[in-house]
Amino acid sequence: MELTKYITETAKAAKEAFYSLTRVSSAQKNQALMLIADNLAAQQHLILAANEADMKAARLQGLDAALLDRLHLSNRSIDAMIEGVHKVAALPDPVGEMDDFRTLHSGITVGKMRVPLGVIGMIYESRPNVTLDAAILCLKAGNSCLLRGGSEAINSNKAIAAVINSALIETGIPQAAVNLITETDRAGVDVLLNLPEYIDVIIPRGGKGLVQRVKEKSRVPVIKHLDGICHVYIDASASAEMAVDIAINAKTSRYGTCNTMETLLIHTSQAEKLLPLLQQKYAEKNVELRGCAQTVQILKDNVLPATEEDWSTEYLAPILSIKVVANIEDAIEHINHFGSHHTDSIVTNDLLHAQLFLRAVDSASVMLNASTRFADGYEYGLGAEIGISTDKIHVRGPVGLQGLTSQKWIVLGHGEVRI
Amino acid sequence: MELTKYITETAKAAKEAFYSLTRVSSAQKNQALMLIADNLAAQQHLILAANEADMKAARLQGLDAALLDRLHLSNRSIDAMIEGVHKVAALPDPVGEMDDFRTLHSGITVGKMRVPLGVIGMIYESRPNVTLDAAILCLKAGNSCLLRGGSEAINSNKAIAAVINSALIETGIPQAAVNLITETDRAGVDVLLNLPEYIDVIIPRGGKGLVQRVKEKSRVPVIKHLDGICHVYIDASASAEMAVDIAINAKTSRYGTCNTMETLLIHTSQAEKLLPLLQQKYAEKNVELRGCAQTVQILKDNVLPATEEDWSTEYLAPILSIKVVANIEDAIEHINHFGSHHTDSIVTNDLLHAQLFLRAVDSASVMLNASTRFADGYEYGLGAEIGISTDKIHVRGPVGLQGLTSQKWIVLGHGEVRI
Repeated sequence: MELTKYITETAKAAKEAFYSLTRVSSAQKNQALMLIADNLAAQQHLILAANEADMKAARLQGLDAALLDRLHLSNRSIDAMIEGVHKVAALPDPVGEMDDFRTLHSGITVGKMRVPLGVIGMIYESRPNVTLDAAILCLKAGNSCLLRGGSEAINSNKAIAAVINSALIETGIPQAAVNLITETDRAGVDVLLNLPEYIDVIIPRGGKGLVQRVKEKSRVPVIKHLDGICHVYIDASASAEMAVDIAINAKTSRYGTCNTMETLLIHTSQAEKLLPLLQQKYAEKNVELRGCAQTVQILKDNVLPATEEDWSTEYLAPILSIKVVANIEDAIEHINHFGSHHTDSIVTNDLLHAQLFLRAVDSASVMLNASTRFADGYEYGLGAEIGISTDKIHVRGPVGLQGLTSQKWIVLGHGEVRI
Repeated sequence: MELTKYITETAKAAKEAFYSLTRVSSAQKNQALMLIADNLAAQQHLILAANEADMKAARLQGLDAALLDRLHLSNRSIDAMIEGVHKVAALPDPVGEMDDFRTLHSGITVGKMRVPLGVIGMIYESRPNVTLDAAILCLKAGNSCLLRGGSEAINSNKAIAAVINSALIETGIPQAAVNLITETDRAGVDVLLNLPEYIDVIIPRGGKGLVQRVKEKSRVPVIKHLDGICHVYIDASASAEMAVDIAINAKTSRYGTCNTMETLLIHTSQAEKLLPLLQQKYAEKNVELRGCAQTVQILKDNVLPATEEDWSTEYLAPILSIKVVANIEDAIEHINHFGSHHTDSIVTNDLLHAQLFLRAVDSASVMLNASTRFADGYEYGLGAEIGISTDKIHVRGPVGLQGLTSQKWIVLGHGEVRI
């Protein structure tokens, strides 16, 4: 009961702060961001001490290496956070942008204004850098935010939130624009998901289990990322060198990222020549291959037979499934059916095939002769990203400042009434 | 079990048809639309006969006049439907539009392509014209649709769906692009709401109860419209004539529409002069007034005292609540707190107040010196509308073709890999 009240009151205060934020100027927001950067530098030792306390507790609890790695802060990671704040401050303010104004037969002029979404609820694991990233992106886009990070990072998160709050106070921005939820009882998440009157959007960030749970339970609209089952399709006309470069990079430059290729599709006319070459290169990096019948026929003992399940598995590991396809139609059908609508790339030199692939593949990012690994807010020039969406409404792919805004209609009249 | 299977299979077929639609040209879609218009004219007698059967059954069941009115089709309403199809055919195709292309430091060129959403599930009451409107808008935007209309309109809907299906067949578009759900058992709606693997968006159209139920139950994202609690605020600097014209038009031109004003806010300096004038004009139209204490002081027996509930009530009737406010800040706060974020208008001649109102009012449509009644897809020049959204994500206000699409990222490379 106390928890429900605490979270509800915090969300209500965030909504009120949001309405004040509509009157805060770009200069004021940027001033707050610069102060946050300065404070991060000045308070670095306090943040690291808080993080060390979290790390110690996490080690005592015997938490796994991956969690410890995400939880850990260093001088270097704080420097990167400071650089991130400077980058966001330098981005143009998306709020207030107006376009598409047209004068209609009635005499009214109608157009659109870009506006914040309102209150954003972030639910994420024990990654203190997300606390900072989410806060600064939400603030820059004119949104209030509620930050519910994992309990293991609570001391680090409190230290970062203190830095942010003091910058808000100093620049006259309501403190309730950025709210760290300090009660990390699990039941608190359910409370957040049930406050559509105060919270406009929920953004979960973390493993598939967390995102799935949030999605199933939320009464607030969710912007989310589930799977990254990405494909590269090597077309009949693809340059061999380009195809190999992209196929190797898309799989092996990092294994745990959502934009990593999980299935390679290759045109039958390229398979005999390229698969042995690729197999050799993947073997050097210890990538396990699982192939369709035709792949097994070509690569013999160097490949395991793929099962139906492989086509819809996000390995997040040095494992790759390979399928030989008869034509581009089969490749597109495979991607739309088995993929996760995240990022898919074609390697080709055939213009009509390029056009068909770009149009018919139903994914957030569709690429031509480029590695799927480019699907990322920084690589797309967004300056920063709060996540990658595999949803179809509102925003697809990397979510930057624009994804944290919406557009409202503006009607400029001169006394017009409707007949 | 049979119902679940029927609806699931239909949704699955709609998804497959959607993937085929990505290869259908604009010319082919427009040809199908022109054929639908021709078929509507040719089959007019059959549609009217089917509608007469629905009307007879509805009358026998003793259904109310409002329902009968929405259910009824005439030669005139079919002519309007035909005209609507011609208008949609004449609109530019939103699909394939590309913009925002930039070349990044890595060498890749990144931009966006407008694409259909996929499969749209329409859930609506017994209004046969919605069957046509939804089908043609979804088709034009490249989406497949599932149409679940009210059971009372089943014969009319079948006749209209037959007209659409024959046009699809004749133009080589998969029939499953437009699917009327002919089993109108209520449980079928729940099945539709639980098919996120095949349905991309649900759009409910109807009374608040229906929309609320769909929203609470749906596992598919919903684009919805709940309340229309619209305001007009008469600022201190407003021209008296303009203020009266807009206040009368916004309330009295139609009572049952969502863009009708429900609360009038008036600056204290205008109240003494304008309220008696307005009261007289509202009295001529039998509009019941419910005012705040100050309004009651000015209008005496010509106004009822408003209760707290009045400020958050969508009357949809000749009733208006009136509140005197001390300044524009109070007006904005009232609107953001009690309104439904639908449409709100300021009447003013003060430039700074106009700018503040446009920016700070958190509604889908914010207007300056114009009647709230303009919030409508046709009046905004969208050519057609499938509904009005009071959501904040994806699309706000009138939803036309663009609201039925999304944008995906397009990456044009030349063999680039990520370092």
